[in-house]
Amino acid sequence: VTEAEQFDDRERRTWFSFLTMQEDLRRHINRQLLKDSGLSLADFSVLSGLSQHPHGSLRVFELVDLLRWERTRLMHQVSRMESRGLLERRPTEEDSRGSRVALTEQGWKAVRSAAPQHLRDVRRTFFDALSPRQVDMLAALSEAVLESIREQEAEEHGKTVR
Amino acid sequence: VTEAEQFDDRERRTWFSFLTMQEDLRRHINRQLLKDSGLSLADFSVLSGLSQHPHGSLRVFELVDLLRWERTRLMHQVSRMESRGLLERRPTEEDSRGSRVALTEQGWKAVRSAAPQHLRDVRRTFFDALSPRQVDMLAALSEAVLESIREQEAEEHGKTVR
Repeated sequence: VTEAEQFDDRERRTWFSFLTMQEDLRRHINRQLLKDSGLSLADFSVLSGLSQHPHGSLRVFELVDLLRWERTRLMHQVSRMESRGLLERRPTEEDSRGSRVALTEQGWKAVRSAAPQHLRDVRRTFFDALSPRQVDMLAALSEAVLESIREQEAEEHGKTVR
Repeated sequence: VTEAEQFDDRERRTWFSFLTMQEDLRRHINRQLLKDSGLSLADFSVLSGLSQHPHGSLRVFELVDLLRWERTRLMHQVSRMESRGLLERRPTEEDSRGSRVALTEQGWKAVRSAAPQHLRDVRRTFFDALSPRQVDMLAALSEAVLESIREQEAEEHGKTVR
């Protein structure tokens, strides 16, 4: 490991505290959500994503785009939620790009009943700890990192195709 | 859901882009690491944490403190890495607080060989996308959120004990 490859103290502190924070935050929010509503953060993300679309329904590829999970992971998650009665899959006839995933009545009830306390928890743990400037900067910073990941993945994809 | 419980647009944008960014970043870095060295980010975190301590060894509770994972998750991870020859567990005689976890020679080789490219990837994807001010602010912000989680967990623990 040469000097140039190492992190300086500031970088090490940032990387380590960022990794720890996001692990702890997910764990904490996930535990609160499970305790209050029996839903995991993954369950809630799917339900909440669907609930913001007409009829609580999206095509699978749209849900992949929205949540940005690996497709395999999403499909496992959807199957588990289907067997718990929270979602249903409906084949689409008009289009070959796969089935739709839709909230069931029970899914709607679950997301509506979980959302208020979950949003209070996120506010209390996350937003209340940050200044308005930090909130804005975090959004900008997150988008910069996302852009950087997208560029690199496009580049790697280019390499593979060539 | 009352007005006060909802997120405003700025909060929604921040929370959503933050969740997406940390999911994508983990996935991207994990994939690079697996491709280049056959290690997952979880493997690397354990190896790298141990390598920064004398003799590449820590007691289990020290490793829990360092990584801040759930103990059960850590123990599964350690068992898998032990069966791959990267770690070994050594009973401690002097103290009842559980065994030590130590890097094997193969574990040392794995972390030394993976680190340079991994650090380059993190630099390229993460630090190169951020300004020095954003790096500093992210460290401060991460520590503020961690502090907020710790306070809440202490409070909940207090409630349980009472």
